[in-house]
Amino acid sequence: MTKTLTSVAALFVLAGAAGAQTLPSWNDSASRDAIISFVDAVTEEGGQNFVPEADRIAVFDNDGTLWTEQPVYFQAIYALDQVKARGAEDPSLLTSDVLKAAAAGDLETVLASGMDGVLEVINFSHSNVTVADFKASAHDWMTSATHPQSGMAYAEMTYQPMVELLEYLREEGFATYIVSGGGIDFIRAISQDAYGIPPQQVVGSEGTTHYEVIDGTPTLMKDGGLSFNDDKDGKPVGIERFIGKRPIFAAGNSDGDFQMLEWTSAGEGPSLGMLVHHTDDTREYAYDREGHIGVLNMGLDEAEARGWVIVDMAQDWSAIWTGQD
Amino acid sequence: MTKTLTSVAALFVLAGAAGAQTLPSWNDSASRDAIISFVDAVTEEGGQNFVPEADRIAVFDNDGTLWTEQPVYFQAIYALDQVKARGAEDPSLLTSDVLKAAAAGDLETVLASGMDGVLEVINFSHSNVTVADFKASAHDWMTSATHPQSGMAYAEMTYQPMVELLEYLREEGFATYIVSGGGIDFIRAISQDAYGIPPQQVVGSEGTTHYEVIDGTPTLMKDGGLSFNDDKDGKPVGIERFIGKRPIFAAGNSDGDFQMLEWTSAGEGPSLGMLVHHTDDTREYAYDREGHIGVLNMGLDEAEARGWVIVDMAQDWSAIWTGQD
Repeated sequence: MTKTLTSVAALFVLAGAAGAQTLPSWNDSASRDAIISFVDAVTEEGGQNFVPEADRIAVFDNDGTLWTEQPVYFQAIYALDQVKARGAEDPSLLTSDVLKAAAAGDLETVLASGMDGVLEVINFSHSNVTVADFKASAHDWMTSATHPQSGMAYAEMTYQPMVELLEYLREEGFATYIVSGGGIDFIRAISQDAYGIPPQQVVGSEGTTHYEVIDGTPTLMKDGGLSFNDDKDGKPVGIERFIGKRPIFAAGNSDGDFQMLEWTSAGEGPSLGMLVHHTDDTREYAYDREGHIGVLNMGLDEAEARGWVIVDMAQDWSAIWTGQD
Repeated sequence: MTKTLTSVAALFVLAGAAGAQTLPSWNDSASRDAIISFVDAVTEEGGQNFVPEADRIAVFDNDGTLWTEQPVYFQAIYALDQVKARGAEDPSLLTSDVLKAAAAGDLETVLASGMDGVLEVINFSHSNVTVADFKASAHDWMTSATHPQSGMAYAEMTYQPMVELLEYLREEGFATYIVSGGGIDFIRAISQDAYGIPPQQVVGSEGTTHYEVIDGTPTLMKDGGLSFNDDKDGKPVGIERFIGKRPIFAAGNSDGDFQMLEWTSAGEGPSLGMLVHHTDDTREYAYDREGHIGVLNMGLDEAEARGWVIVDMAQDWSAIWTGQD
């Protein structure tokens, strides 16, 4: 009788473990082991590396870390699509060569026009619009427009293993934040649906916004521009401003994330830095030291010395996008 | 037997109610009733005014709403005290007339020097310092320096009824935020201890901060200045930037909070706007339409039409400061 009960109990334990496998889309790998060991250590009550829940702050870059960033940042494609769509309705809106190039989908000319030209294109859809209308437009685009290569909706191109990692950390008492060079309102338009991350846990680059009562209605209007660049050394600044605490976990994929990992790793207690390495030319893209997006040099050079985990997408992940079957 | 049981049960209900009295330092008043009615309505599952927990955002001004702001904002007294203390150690630091006036405690001359002069005094203690050192200094000052009139430590001069209100709202599933014209780092130095509000739920005015690796140590340095003024129409902007959602509860005490209440009240669902009216010249201070701090005109003129609750400190509160016996 005792034996039978024990067997049944063992069966339940096995079933429970299988039903709630940790990080199921991660292959058995050094990176998966490092994540789980770290989480086990900081959540072990009474352990020497225990971190109270209030201090379990995890920060994630977005483009290239939580979702795809090729052939170019999705937000840039959104901006071009808006210029194209509205320009087709009313060509008089295309008041400059750079806007005409954007409407024609000529990204090369837009990029060659420098920061002023890029901001002119971004401002076309990111200014003179209420924050609410902008978020609705961005959400609609991300869930309906399709990626030129995968054919999937952009919102489906989040990485399944990273979504699992976010959920796993939250189950273990972490607060998960996005800290992105992308626009804060653009990401907030999808962060809850795509990642389970509410707007107050999204830090990003910002234009200015102003408050105005229009025809009796209190309104927040986007003014455009770039008043805060949440990239490189802007990331620790954005983290301090929005969170006011140093994270213990940071994940990125490019040199734009270097300072965020550096700042996180310099804390007194335990910490984990992680870099997603785009090595999968078959299922996603392969790129690192060269290119126009997501260049990764400092991270590859210094990860080992700094104890950061490099995630090899081709080797470590059994699935890529959440939207795939 | 049945009767006895019923009586015992009734006794327990009474005891339970007395043991967990809602807002114990609030007198039976229209303002207390309005708060409790609102909370009951938005937390009633299935009720027509039910609001899910994720959207129960409550925002509070700090100076004059959560703690005293007389004879002048505590942060200004901190700034003067720092100039005085460091100037006594090294008079060569007092490089201008306005700094000399600050060191002498001559606030009038400092204020008469205009925004440039005020910023010079504030920057003396709020720049060229790491964020961590600044917070430590501010925390030390708030818990050890004493108020010129009450003789209490500044951190003890939080309002007991408001601390109870914060706790009550959190128990009812609200997230409580501070949205203050005061400096964000100054408030974060004490917000958890004083109000149970973690740093990521404090929005305030900001100078710039930069990231720098100094002698191998990653460091966040305060640069001073005023890059964001979280007052008046800046408050809805700060709320959107940090929270990304419209609050359903907003409490202030001055015209600097008008737009925050206006924005909150313009939401589609239920909302409550509240103004603390300083009417108690005996236990605290009495002021509203005139003065140099916390001027309240628009709120008094428009509260009734807008359905905002005016809290009469003298009438509605049975206790004032948390630090009092």
